[in-house]
This record gives sequence, structure tokens and C-alpha cells, in this order.
Amino acid sequence: MKILKDRLLKDGKVIGDDVLEVDSFLKQQLDPVLMKQMADEFYERFKEKKVTKILTVEASGIAPAIMVGYNFNVPVVFGRKQKSVTLNDNMYSATVFSYTHQTSNEIVISRDFLSADDHVLIIDDFLANGQAVEGLLDIVNQAEATVAGIGISVEKSFQKGRKMLDEQGYQVESLARISSFEGGKIHFLDEE
Amino acid sequence: MKILKDRLLKDGKVIGDDVLEVDSFLKQQLDPVLMKQMADEFYERFKEKKVTKILTVEASGIAPAIMVGYNFNVPVVFGRKQKSVTLNDNMYSATVFSYTHQTSNEIVISRDFLSADDHVLIIDDFLANGQAVEGLLDIVNQAEATVAGIGISVEKSFQKGRKMLDEQGYQVESLARISSFEGGKIHFLDEE
Repeated sequence: MKILKDRLLKDGKVIGDDVLEVDSFLKQQLDPVLMKQMADEFYERFKEKKVTKILTVEASGIAPAIMVGYNFNVPVVFGRKQKSVTLNDNMYSATVFSYTHQTSNEIVISRDFLSADDHVLIIDDFLANGQAVEGLLDIVNQAEATVAGIGISVEKSFQKGRKMLDEQGYQVESLARISSFEGGKIHFLDEE
Repeated sequence: MKILKDRLLKDGKVIGDDVLEVDSFLKQQLDPVLMKQMADEFYERFKEKKVTKILTVEASGIAPAIMVGYNFNVPVVFGRKQKSVTLNDNMYSATVFSYTHQTSNEIVISRDFLSADDHVLIIDDFLANGQAVEGLLDIVNQAEATVAGIGISVEKSFQKGRKMLDEQGYQVESLARISSFEGGKIHFLDEE
């Protein structure tokens, strides 16, 4: 998606070998017009699929997810991150390891909001090692729901997440695929 | 706002004397069509004001805020909640006491995203004792920015937050104002 790639080149900051800082438009400060354009692009890429629910994880997944949910006219459910979880029969939970922070979190979702009838489109802002998405997939499986697809804003294609999801046979759509940060600059996979 | 009040009556659950559970459409699961209608109503109520930025707090403030930001075509900034904060010159922070959880959190926002030139519309999902909004106002003041107004989805008018904000002279617009939960049912202030 050209408009997102251009914005990453303009306002993204490469830090070291593998960190991309996008706080000014995708993380702590959000550009709602860009979010809407991204949501429209996700809709285009998944509109042939049956989708009954959008699933994401707090906090930075919520903004793109709500706009995708509006386009599909279906509810949006977000997982809460918790340090530890008290076992509770009414919760799905999955453990997610963060390479960035070198800590584990639980993602927790009430069973009221995901069932075996659901066709779930997973939306998240970043795909690197794929731990957050794997946690969400784990929860979709616990609910015996169907995965309609996985939509990612920014993918670091040189890390293992995308390959892992492809091997599991999911339709993964990433709006910007980064091949490397060589020389401190963003390089994209040449796809267009 | 009739459509929100009707939805609260239909899907909100009153728990005890002062808790309203809205997990199925405003909290963990979000209804994006309702969010858009609420954002349109906030736009109507504040469109005469100069607004350069929307400010909210994670997690459940993000969805309404991003849609309001889209209507105003301005960036959305959200405060992160943290248990404790390491002092950092590049952060605004405010301490917020939660009566629900009986704990204090810090709300943290990077100085990069709020400045003295900003006219800030604060959006949040609930107003009860007003602690979260007071924290956001504290941060706007630290930035020497201007408060354009305060937009709230659901106000518990029988708690002290609204009165406190009115006394400070802000334009506060709440889309549903609850006067009591007498008899385990939601009663609204008669405004229309």
C-alpha cells in the first residue's frame, strides 16, 4: 500500500537493526485518515471472505480494528494484556512472549464474545516474530471459531512471523512488507 | 443521544448500586456502527470549536477517539496507563486514582505530541468521579495547551465528576447522562 509505505519512509525512525519507531502516526499518536485508508484496503483484500468478527489486541490494534469493523459492519473484540491471569471459566487466555520487552503476558478475552459460529478476521499493527498473532490464533482455536484471515499494517518480513503464518495456510495481508533496515533505512519487499 | 440510551437499556447490565457493565458493545467488544454514530454526535456538538488534537486514554477510549479524530481530521493521542513511571524529561505524566480498582495509575504521554499551540478535545467512554479526565486535564495544562472541550460517552451524573468539570468552566458533552440505578434499572436525566 503505497500511501503507508511513503508515510513510513517519511515519519518512521529506524533504531538499530530491527526496531522501527512509528509513535507519531501508528502508535501513541494516530493519524485517523491514514487508519481509514488502511481499513479500506483491508476491506478490499478480505471482502470476499465471510467475516463475523474482528479480533485484535490492546492498545495499538484497536484503532485500525474499529475502522475495519465499521467497513465489515461486524463487532470488534480486543484481547486485554495482563501480567498474570487468575483462572476463570469464562475466559479464553493465551500466553504471549514479547521479544521486544523480553517478558510474557497473557492475552485474555471473555468467552461471551467468541464462539464456534464466528469467522474471525485478525487485525494487528505489527508482525515480527508473530507471537501476538499466534496468541490470538490460539484463542480462536479455543473458541473453535474459523480464521477468515490475518491483516497486518506493517510486517517485518525478515523476522519469522510471516513465514510461520504462511506455513499454517492462512491468508495473510500486510499493507507494508519490510525486507530490511540496511544502512539505517527502510527497504520494502518489491511486490508491486 | 437516543440511540445510545436505547442500547444501554437493552444491553447494559446494572451491578449493585453504581456499576454499569457494557462489555458487549462499549468495552471489550465494540459496536463500530454505534461508535461512528457517537463520533458524529460529538462532531456536531464541538464542530464550532477549534480542535487540533483529540486526547484520550487507553484502552476503551481509543475506539471512540479515533472516529472523532477522523471527523475533525486531526491526530489522536492516547495516554498509556502504567503502574509506575520512571521520570523522563520527554514525558508528561499524571497520577489517576481508580475508585473501581482502588489503585493509582500513571497516565503517560510523550511531549512530542502535545504543545502550547494545541486545542485539545478530550474524549473518554465513562465519566464517574472524573479522575481520568482530571489526569488528562493535568497533562493538557502541563503542555500549556488549550482545552476545547470534553466529550463523554456515558456519564454517571450522580457521581462527582460532572459537577467538578462544570465548576471549572469546561464545555462537557455527555451522550448519555445517568441519574441513578434505582431498582436495578438505568434512569437518565430528563434532558430532551
